[in-house]
Amino acid sequence: MSMLKNPAAKYRPAPQVDLPDRCWPSRVITAAPRWLSTDLRDGNQALIEPMDVARKLRMFEALVAIGFKEIEVGFPSASQADFDFVRCLIEEDRIPDDVTIQVLTPARSHLIERTFESLQGARAAIVHLYNATAPVMRQIVLGLDVDGIVELATTHAAMLRDLAARQPATRWTFQYSPEMFSNTELEVSRRVVDAVSAVWEASPARPCIVNLPSTVENCTPNVFADMVEWMDRHLARRDGIVLCVHPHNDRGTGTASAELAILAGADRVEGCLFGNGERTGNLDLVNVALNLYTQGVAPGLDFSDIDAIRRTVEFCNQIPVHPRHPYVGELVYTSFSGSHQDAIKKAFAARRDGEVWDMPYLPIDPKDLGRSYEAVIRVNSQSGKGGISYLLETEYGLELPRRLQIEFSQQVQAVMDVQGKELAAADLWRLFDEVYGLAAVDVAMPQPAQVDDAGDGSVRLRARIGGGLVGNGEPRWLAGAGNGPVDAFVQALTESGGRSVEVLDYHEHSIGSGAQARAAAYVELRVGTRVLFGVGIDANIVSASIKAVLSGWQRAVNEGVADAAATSTA
Amino acid sequence: MSMLKNPAAKYRPAPQVDLPDRCWPSRVITAAPRWLSTDLRDGNQALIEPMDVARKLRMFEALVAIGFKEIEVGFPSASQADFDFVRCLIEEDRIPDDVTIQVLTPARSHLIERTFESLQGARAAIVHLYNATAPVMRQIVLGLDVDGIVELATTHAAMLRDLAARQPATRWTFQYSPEMFSNTELEVSRRVVDAVSAVWEASPARPCIVNLPSTVENCTPNVFADMVEWMDRHLARRDGIVLCVHPHNDRGTGTASAELAILAGADRVEGCLFGNGERTGNLDLVNVALNLYTQGVAPGLDFSDIDAIRRTVEFCNQIPVHPRHPYVGELVYTSFSGSHQDAIKKAFAARRDGEVWDMPYLPIDPKDLGRSYEAVIRVNSQSGKGGISYLLETEYGLELPRRLQIEFSQQVQAVMDVQGKELAAADLWRLFDEVYGLAAVDVAMPQPAQVDDAGDGSVRLRARIGGGLVGNGEPRWLAGAGNGPVDAFVQALTESGGRSVEVLDYHEHSIGSGAQARAAAYVELRVGTRVLFGVGIDANIVSASIKAVLSGWQRAVNEGVADAAATSTA
Repeated sequence: MSMLKNPAAKYRPAPQVDLPDRCWPSRVITAAPRWLSTDLRDGNQALIEPMDVARKLRMFEALVAIGFKEIEVGFPSASQADFDFVRCLIEEDRIPDDVTIQVLTPARSHLIERTFESLQGARAAIVHLYNATAPVMRQIVLGLDVDGIVELATTHAAMLRDLAARQPATRWTFQYSPEMFSNTELEVSRRVVDAVSAVWEASPARPCIVNLPSTVENCTPNVFADMVEWMDRHLARRDGIVLCVHPHNDRGTGTASAELAILAGADRVEGCLFGNGERTGNLDLVNVALNLYTQGVAPGLDFSDIDAIRRTVEFCNQIPVHPRHPYVGELVYTSFSGSHQDAIKKAFAARRDGEVWDMPYLPIDPKDLGRSYEAVIRVNSQSGKGGISYLLETEYGLELPRRLQIEFSQQVQAVMDVQGKELAAADLWRLFDEVYGLAAVDVAMPQPAQVDDAGDGSVRLRARIGGGLVGNGEPRWLAGAGNGPVDAFVQALTESGGRSVEVLDYHEHSIGSGAQARAAAYVELRVGTRVLFGVGIDANIVSASIKAVLSGWQRAVNEGVADAAATSTA
Repeated sequence: MSMLKNPAAKYRPAPQVDLPDRCWPSRVITAAPRWLSTDLRDGNQALIEPMDVARKLRMFEALVAIGFKEIEVGFPSASQADFDFVRCLIEEDRIPDDVTIQVLTPARSHLIERTFESLQGARAAIVHLYNATAPVMRQIVLGLDVDGIVELATTHAAMLRDLAARQPATRWTFQYSPEMFSNTELEVSRRVVDAVSAVWEASPARPCIVNLPSTVENCTPNVFADMVEWMDRHLARRDGIVLCVHPHNDRGTGTASAELAILAGADRVEGCLFGNGERTGNLDLVNVALNLYTQGVAPGLDFSDIDAIRRTVEFCNQIPVHPRHPYVGELVYTSFSGSHQDAIKKAFAARRDGEVWDMPYLPIDPKDLGRSYEAVIRVNSQSGKGGISYLLETEYGLELPRRLQIEFSQQVQAVMDVQGKELAAADLWRLFDEVYGLAAVDVAMPQPAQVDDAGDGSVRLRARIGGGLVGNGEPRWLAGAGNGPVDAFVQALTESGGRSVEVLDYHEHSIGSGAQARAAAYVELRVGTRVLFGVGIDANIVSASIKAVLSGWQRAVNEGVADAAATSTA
């Protein structure tokens, strides 16, 4: 075991924040934050194959369609491709009036100049300035003390102000990030942010954006929330600041960090669709937005066709979305557990339109995201009858009586235990067809039975049955009388050789409507001592019920039950 | 837009917990919880293809090797396959002495009987009883009021007690889950848990496990923590209870829910490797364990070869782990950003063995998980010189001088802007070889130069140069004198026709050691007005430096600079 049994010598815990009177744990999120998509910047720079112009445009248009009003579109001083894309957006007039683009620049003069060059002619723009502030970066990378960091930030903040003044036709917003805020002493973060916001004369009338990145997650999300609340309470020009967070996901808690940060005072969040980004990714904006949605808070973003958005993101990023990714993964509206399936089926049946959503195992109505109920339930060897009958009902219109559900689920279970694989609805249908001999019955009785009303409350029935089901294998005519066609057919079967055929239960319902409608009949029979179900499907309701009896009879024959009975009377 | 713009009518927020004096936000996790892997139960039942016996055994053995002491191995009353697997583990004596298996059973008599049947002969076992407690389940699925739920739970809890008493050779532990705890009124959860733990006479000497599942995540993780702390403070037999949580991940906050629940009093957590499980999955135990590890807390689980564990899990589950999955994904130790790469390179250089881990952008030492630094940095069109030089250094031993880094990164950038693809280390090497003409120089100067010490502090040098680099294309001898071989060769080149060749800077270092060692030389030349680098690699340090000069000369020739200069003096 090479992993340290006692990692205390190598790793140290994140420092706590002294904030015993913290307020955020008692708050509730009642409104959506401002959203900033950085798919085209932080997301793009983390791709194995960064987007070309065509993919960037497709992403940009998708973000606009979802409803993002602030979109970070690149790092124009870092690569020609990003510079050209910003120019393309501006020169081809691709930015809607209510959308503002944002670009990132480090605190370096020639890169800031190049950044403003890229933005010439923009109607509005957010220029996002950053420099590292964490101790490891000050000491090892930059070789600056805190005074030096403050001077670095304010000097370049002033440069933003001055360059913006030279392009007055553009509506400018300034944004500052103390990079690695999550690893920076709070007093240092406050000092540099206060200094920068003073240079920009941030005020309620002309606010700047202060972005607090958890560049690398390094603490539980409650500590990050404490840090954000501390900043919220201590910043000098708080009323002139849009407080923003930019969580990453190194500890798998990016979504929680964003949510608790909103409780702690953040007004705005930055992230990417489905959490693309460096290493473990940026905050997943879709996740946060839909978490709000399920609490009754309108996110202001439209994910009503979430699969189309997923396809776009996968095309642009060339990285798949995981099948268990919240809200969008292939499997997230799928329930394999029998008890879950059963509960969902009952709750769907009980639900009335317009009611508050309170469905077991479904935190959101899949329909709201353009997903369907059909995919909700799949069946494998761990599943119970609920899922099976649900699938047969939704996909094939069959409403199996409860005892038939139990009978058939045992058949399914037996197949599952052997195959070990999931059965799709079509597999279930094939198994159902085979077990209840639906096709075999159609072959055995190609013509409807002749049913004549005797006029005395009874009917007489004649049916030609082939396929070896009765007698010696040659087609033969059966005839019987009873108080209805099913009763008459049972009499006919009984008289043909087998004794004691009895109908214990009978259900029939239509499938579909109009000219295409058919009937499905289910009969529970006792044949000899064996109790089992038969199923018949036909356009004619009488034929369906007679086929159902024949189906059950046939199953008993196959088991040897009816033969034995027939032999005993022969 | 079909998604509701105002979802308040359809969705309601999760209720808050009245706990203004909550303690958990001020606590720190200082010890690992007890771990329960449910990969073989909750994980397995959510698979498209549930594991066969071979895959189950492989998973079981992997879990044991990682260090899990409590493993839920199935739901033996729900499927023959699970029943058989439990029997296999017991009868083939596959359970180590310090490992206890756990099995799940619903609160139904015949299923509990079947469960105990599956456990006959077990040395020790945890029997995990559950029933639903949430309002939607009481009203729609079970048709029971709260009294009915309490009776359902206690009746079957008593049955566990009685059946266990009949198999006294087994060391029994009982576990109870109020299913959908996350959606159940706290008073109801308390009542049923108190009733069940009374039936089991839970005490410090003989504790039971009470498991609180967020069966479906329905609130921010701070609210879940409040719920857990409320239970922790209100349960009647708290000192006889191992308080456990079982988070799911519907809101993408399963890891945070577990961490905050531990702060709130949970002693034990249930989950799966890499978060497999129904829908969005169970809690990812690896994530929580390694989050603790990076805070200096020993998790008691061994992930020192995390890729081997990932391969096992992918084989057993037939579901891939996402490339951005915390700690294990293919891309999580990869930094594409140039500034990140630069910082990592500097911090690695500054780091001393035994120091506390404080590396920018790397929350954990990849080596601790059996991952290597080599994969840390990849280069794409968004990357800067830091990553490029890092790769050439780690993979090829080249320590490029800073200005050469800048020069070469521009070449890389140009290629990137055209290709748009990531360059691997080998691609960078090929490009480096091509730009600096390393192979061409080897061809042009197959023999070492002859260097003779004149005895007066100067050397005389003769070198045979071919390949059309100097003169008319025929190989020719150059000769010069200087204060060293480089100086002498520059004189020789100058006298051969081109004027004003000047060495501005020179670096050389060895690559490797012993008989295999070679030297890499880098010279910054001014040829005419052009300033550029040349690179030479040779087993002989003199030849390496001469080749470096030739490399730079050749580049200038190719640009036309040297030719023009030569012509002007002709």
